[in-house]
Amino acid sequence: MGLADEVLVGNRLSLARLLTQIENETPVGRQAISELYRFTGRAHIIGVTGAPGTGKSSLVNCLALAFRQPEGGIPQAKVGILAVDPSSPFSGGAILGDRVRMKDLAGDSGIFIRSMATRGSLGGLAVTTAGMVQALDAAGFEIILVETVGAGQSEIDIARLAHTTLVVEAPGLGDDIQAIKAGILEIADILVINKADQPGVDVTERALKANLDLAHPSPHTFRTGKTSAAFLLAGMPVETPAPAELWIPPIVKTTATEKKGVGELIQAILQHRGYIEGNGMKRSHEIFRTAYEMGVLLEEALLQDWRQGISDVELEALLEQVYTRQISPWEAVQKLV
Amino acid sequence: MGLADEVLVGNRLSLARLLTQIENETPVGRQAISELYRFTGRAHIIGVTGAPGTGKSSLVNCLALAFRQPEGGIPQAKVGILAVDPSSPFSGGAILGDRVRMKDLAGDSGIFIRSMATRGSLGGLAVTTAGMVQALDAAGFEIILVETVGAGQSEIDIARLAHTTLVVEAPGLGDDIQAIKAGILEIADILVINKADQPGVDVTERALKANLDLAHPSPHTFRTGKTSAAFLLAGMPVETPAPAELWIPPIVKTTATEKKGVGELIQAILQHRGYIEGNGMKRSHEIFRTAYEMGVLLEEALLQDWRQGISDVELEALLEQVYTRQISPWEAVQKLV
Repeated sequence: MGLADEVLVGNRLSLARLLTQIENETPVGRQAISELYRFTGRAHIIGVTGAPGTGKSSLVNCLALAFRQPEGGIPQAKVGILAVDPSSPFSGGAILGDRVRMKDLAGDSGIFIRSMATRGSLGGLAVTTAGMVQALDAAGFEIILVETVGAGQSEIDIARLAHTTLVVEAPGLGDDIQAIKAGILEIADILVINKADQPGVDVTERALKANLDLAHPSPHTFRTGKTSAAFLLAGMPVETPAPAELWIPPIVKTTATEKKGVGELIQAILQHRGYIEGNGMKRSHEIFRTAYEMGVLLEEALLQDWRQGISDVELEALLEQVYTRQISPWEAVQKLV
Repeated sequence: MGLADEVLVGNRLSLARLLTQIENETPVGRQAISELYRFTGRAHIIGVTGAPGTGKSSLVNCLALAFRQPEGGIPQAKVGILAVDPSSPFSGGAILGDRVRMKDLAGDSGIFIRSMATRGSLGGLAVTTAGMVQALDAAGFEIILVETVGAGQSEIDIARLAHTTLVVEAPGLGDDIQAIKAGILEIADILVINKADQPGVDVTERALKANLDLAHPSPHTFRTGKTSAAFLLAGMPVETPAPAELWIPPIVKTTATEKKGVGELIQAILQHRGYIEGNGMKRSHEIFRTAYEMGVLLEEALLQDWRQGISDVELEALLEQVYTRQISPWEAVQKLV
């Protein structure tokens, strides 16, 4: 039985191996995820992002627990957690605390947790994350929580994978709201104020509301302009109908350490799921995500192709001309293509 | 006289126009910057980055003033300032306060200030910034200050343009040091604690020193691994000799609003310039930067080329197969190339 088949029948060890293959971008991983692709599309993908110190990890743990041991009408679901830490492009980043997370959730076969240190290009990171989400999806995990640290382009790219994106804030983080408002609020489907037992909640809530009023465009209207999705650069047709009814991101207050507010948060998530499934936005989301993923893969393939058609000697000679400023980089590229 | 020639003879209006053309990625801009390329390579490029609220803009103003009205053996230099705000990939970002900056520096033809809202892909942003730096360089600006906000991948990519990178901190920013330590300290050639008149300077300095001891690898050793520079992905040869003598980033305390510590900071910058010019690192830096820039331009050119060879109908048919999960994105790309 191949790796893909093992994953389909629920072999956790094979799933763990596959995730490693995908993370390392091996041919084996690509082949397996390609075979599994037609079994994907069932999971609801929840992105969780926010600044360090907001308690995202505890919140993700709580959400997972609440889907595993549901109360008050929440449907039970198998949960996959993928924690991505793209904070250090140089050193490979820190491994997140898998063991800490496992304490509450150990021994439950309905849950699968994986941490991923960042590596590679941003486009590459988003594609690797997409592959890992697809593996969990094919393996039958119905809720997939993708946790990212921070508020940069990589988080935004990863958030584009998610059907529902939570942006997590906490009271008293000072400049963070200022830092966060520019890009990250625009991707929020739900705003969470975690650590809501701490002083300053009202200030944070007012600040978020004010920023939301200023900054929030219609959610899930993918801007195609000159974004990083290579396919869109290449003038690919991408269908993005405007939603009939605007989604106003609700603000939900939680205290993850005391498991407070989590039920309300899950209700908001389920509402958002109903919203995007009901108005065709789930499909346009899917189309955008696929175009993005194909764009990154296409760029890679085109570069490899091109590189095979040119000798090291030719290339180095041309580069030397650029280094010595005889020709410009742009002229050199015209000669190379 | 063409735009490039106008810029070479010091026409400020033409320079401003050229920068707009480069920012908008027009063919006119690319042509002109290509013509100007052989006049570049004279400027010392200083990157200034750090979290919001650290007073980077004031510091950049001070540095510019100190190079224009030098004291204590600092050489006078023409100064170009490029302020990049990549905080909002969605809305195009806020225009920085040119007018505020101009107050101290107005009427001096030895200074040129330009703000640039972010747009486009990250690779694209780095290339656009590189082009604008080249224009200022060719126009005779000897010191070019490139200011970026934040600590994400885009800042790191832009910092790679700079010969000397300043990472700016301020006391009392709470979680910021934690947030900043992972990636950004590794790109610092000089650490600046600005707002050094405020309480908590010692705490910040100790935290920076501790992080520096933990995190700092040999500076300017460009990691080629799987970084975003497409050229490196394509297996391009890039020369990166290890420096004979390690540069330990000094920590300099400044109070930009009172113009304190700026002389010391400039001495540190000049020392770093001497260091990279003396040991061949300036050349390997140049090679890395060029390879990066060519990589981004090459990706663009390859994509455009490919797109011209395939019809909309073919492409849409294949995409439909992916959306309906008949084939995987990876299989589709194999068919497309």
